[in-house]
Amino acid sequence: MSAEPRLLEVRKNILKQNDVVARMLRERFRGQGTFVVSLVSSPGAGKTAFLERTLTLLHPHYRVAALVGDLATENDAVRLARSQAPVKQITTGTLCHLEAAMVDHALAGWDIGELDFLFIENVGNLVCPSSYDLGENLRLVLLSVTEGEDKPLKYPTIFNSADVAVITKMDLAEVVEFDEESMKANIQAVRPGMRHFTVSAKTGAGLPEYLQFLTARLAELTQKTSV
Amino acid sequence: MSAEPRLLEVRKNILKQNDVVARMLRERFRGQGTFVVSLVSSPGAGKTAFLERTLTLLHPHYRVAALVGDLATENDAVRLARSQAPVKQITTGTLCHLEAAMVDHALAGWDIGELDFLFIENVGNLVCPSSYDLGENLRLVLLSVTEGEDKPLKYPTIFNSADVAVITKMDLAEVVEFDEESMKANIQAVRPGMRHFTVSAKTGAGLPEYLQFLTARLAELTQKTSV
Repeated sequence: MSAEPRLLEVRKNILKQNDVVARMLRERFRGQGTFVVSLVSSPGAGKTAFLERTLTLLHPHYRVAALVGDLATENDAVRLARSQAPVKQITTGTLCHLEAAMVDHALAGWDIGELDFLFIENVGNLVCPSSYDLGENLRLVLLSVTEGEDKPLKYPTIFNSADVAVITKMDLAEVVEFDEESMKANIQAVRPGMRHFTVSAKTGAGLPEYLQFLTARLAELTQKTSV
Repeated sequence: MSAEPRLLEVRKNILKQNDVVARMLRERFRGQGTFVVSLVSSPGAGKTAFLERTLTLLHPHYRVAALVGDLATENDAVRLARSQAPVKQITTGTLCHLEAAMVDHALAGWDIGELDFLFIENVGNLVCPSSYDLGENLRLVLLSVTEGEDKPLKYPTIFNSADVAVITKMDLAEVVEFDEESMKANIQAVRPGMRHFTVSAKTGAGLPEYLQFLTARLAELTQKTSV
């Protein structure tokens, strides 16, 4: 007997459990007026550098915090803590994605009601995180200019599960002969109408537009909540 | 009841099945004097560019072929075919790794006995491929200089399942301020004694040392087989 049908069945159960926890988290976030952003990308696309800049720029004006997932090490939490925002590391062992229950567990003891923005940095992986809802309001998929313009075509599932694409390391665009039109066309081929930002955490280019987008989304959320 | 113990049990069965097929493949490769190299890395680390150079340089002197895994698209097979070597694409759907049975299936109809080298490019992922033996003689883990020096610490499992590390895109080392000593220290921390090569598929730097290593390993294999 092939083990595959059984595996699918068990995986479906886990997803169902995950969806229940994710829905609970989403309702809690919404009720408390916290806008939750998750970040997915391949390893080394610059999630942590981008998030450190985001936290540093938002921290003086908004109440922000971050959860960060990795198989091993607390390195990213240490890097992100330089932003002065509260940060917690989630280590997943050999698991290639975060699950809603891990987010729920990591939030224990934090007063989420105090937060405007919560950022969740997923494990570096362009495949596994796509199936797991974390209760976030916005899922960003990050792609660096050094990875090649074909990534949306090769990893369509993650683009279909994300809301917005962020093209990172734009400071390297010229040296790697990055073709923005080709990348844009590939994103649109997989996910017509998907919005994207081009940014550089190093130079700060593109960050104002992105932060304006985030704060507008927070304003929408709190208006809805207060009605 | 938690679904986790059942998932683990089923996963173990799949791994056992995979190991049986992998062992069969390994014996077949060994018996026919074919040296098999697999490549793993995160998406965009430059596996395909590196493999295209490898095939192009080896093709005039050795009988070489390649299998290449991706979730979707035949792009990589098209790129690799420019080397003039025979190439087949394996599309995995939503699966984040290749399995031995997929390799076995893709080889049907090819006379492996004719080959000196078979290269297998895995799906771009630094987590999933680590548990799946493909019957290869040598597993390379590729890391680009743009990904950051901390990757070995954050993805220890893949470094423990690989034999040799290849640091790619060395042409970008200066512009991204790549710290080779730090990367080497991190590789050694996770996997003491692991050999590494530094290469650039763009400039060709480091490729002669790497090819010399491969051809020496092929000579060892054929000596053993002919005894």
